[in-house]
Amino acid sequence: MSSLALAVSRRNRRTPYTDRIETLGVQGYSIVNHTLLPKAFGRTVEEEYWHLRSSVQLWDVSCQRQVEVRGPEAARLVQMMTPRDLGGVVVGQCIYAPLIDDKAGLINDPVILKRAEDWYWLSIADSDVLLWTKGLALGLGIDVAVTEPDVSPLAVQGPRAEDLVAAVFGDAVRNLAYFRFSLFDFLDRQLVVARSGYSKQGGFEIYLDDSSLGTELWDMLWSAGQGLDVTPGCPNLIERIEGGLLSYGNEMTRSNNPLEINLDRFCTLGGQIDYIGR
Amino acid sequence: MSSLALAVSRRNRRTPYTDRIETLGVQGYSIVNHTLLPKAFGRTVEEEYWHLRSSVQLWDVSCQRQVEVRGPEAARLVQMMTPRDLGGVVVGQCIYAPLIDDKAGLINDPVILKRAEDWYWLSIADSDVLLWTKGLALGLGIDVAVTEPDVSPLAVQGPRAEDLVAAVFGDAVRNLAYFRFSLFDFLDRQLVVARSGYSKQGGFEIYLDDSSLGTELWDMLWSAGQGLDVTPGCPNLIERIEGGLLSYGNEMTRSNNPLEINLDRFCTLGGQIDYIGR
Repeated sequence: MSSLALAVSRRNRRTPYTDRIETLGVQGYSIVNHTLLPKAFGRTVEEEYWHLRSSVQLWDVSCQRQVEVRGPEAARLVQMMTPRDLGGVVVGQCIYAPLIDDKAGLINDPVILKRAEDWYWLSIADSDVLLWTKGLALGLGIDVAVTEPDVSPLAVQGPRAEDLVAAVFGDAVRNLAYFRFSLFDFLDRQLVVARSGYSKQGGFEIYLDDSSLGTELWDMLWSAGQGLDVTPGCPNLIERIEGGLLSYGNEMTRSNNPLEINLDRFCTLGGQIDYIGR
Repeated sequence: MSSLALAVSRRNRRTPYTDRIETLGVQGYSIVNHTLLPKAFGRTVEEEYWHLRSSVQLWDVSCQRQVEVRGPEAARLVQMMTPRDLGGVVVGQCIYAPLIDDKAGLINDPVILKRAEDWYWLSIADSDVLLWTKGLALGLGIDVAVTEPDVSPLAVQGPRAEDLVAAVFGDAVRNLAYFRFSLFDFLDRQLVVARSGYSKQGGFEIYLDDSSLGTELWDMLWSAGQGLDVTPGCPNLIERIEGGLLSYGNEMTRSNNPLEINLDRFCTLGGQIDYIGR
């Protein structure tokens, strides 16, 4: 990994999994949403690629912060923020949706989780979508609460991910369809588990909503994965580019509109929906 | 410096001064506003402190991105964003102003530059104030343009800063009062130079508005500083805490309101101004 030295400060937030990541020999980080994103564990990008395609990896993606939009007009506000038609989205569904500004410049490209008719999570890339959403809601006088809940996603990616997640959360996770989520028991609570993630090798994202349980969640998955060749990992450059997954802040920024970066299939241009930047 | 390894990517933006900073032996960075902020040059924090108090340092603070608010209603929008009364601020003045949300949580604490009656720059700390400002402006239908111009501040700090800046920009900079700015000739253009900066040792911030000229600006200052014991530097932990300067993202976040962190002297609580979070 080509790297610089990163000064330690509260500005670069640790995650509920950082202690374990360090024990397992993390060798570098990026900073996403003011949060540490592990980037290297001592193997080459190519070695990590082949492992991801054959086994299973745990990724600390706590940096994918949730922006929660909740209240009577939540659906209206979230629809205004994206050119993708959210009309048919049902509770329990994830949907990838570019967010654009009034000039159609890309602000972020979250996966949106519809938790209830009046309750959305935006699982974001690297920009402060919370501020954008709060600014719009306040300015428009829309009746919603916009907050950043204590949610730290942990991704389980690779062809053996289903066996691993089933070992901890039960065989019912095997019935989850792609880009669907449901609640599954964990200790004395229930966690959102989605069949999703930033690879094309299959897998899940676990939305831990109590950061004090990070070590326990990591350890249970790690222990269950010992027969499955589990390793710590991170979004893989080769794999994601091969799979056509763009990275906000790298391949695309606010100076791009969704059409020029091949996101037109996620836009509903000829429809009736009302959105900013139309 | 206690440090981790930072993975190189476009996400962590280089600045117009990074080439020179590297030549001069930078040993670590923080990430502020998705941008590299140099943090160490091989001396201890205490050694840097004593040098800053006796000589002059060049700080690459390009991470202090400008949010430009320009248009007929610029003054109205900027005032709505802070509890500090901006009514008496004149063109050519800088003013430190906490920005708060509807719950009085701190969103950022920029220095605001009033460039004209209808033109403001917010020189920001580590959060995407651009998105907050654009969201509010759009939502409220306020007649302004909100943009991020190509401006990369370079700070010259320390007791010998005035001699150094005067050597490059002329003796007229000596007449600048504290927290005032003016335009000064540089090559074939004019740059905003302010008597300001994130130390209590005196100094200036030069708002370079063409990133292609970064090396030339650095070299002219560096050359002029050879008789003044100039070094590269950065905001100094000992000096700023001694001087009472807080760091957004470290000592204060959105979970703080200005009153609980001793910023009440920058709030006009009993006045007539209209602001969010009042």
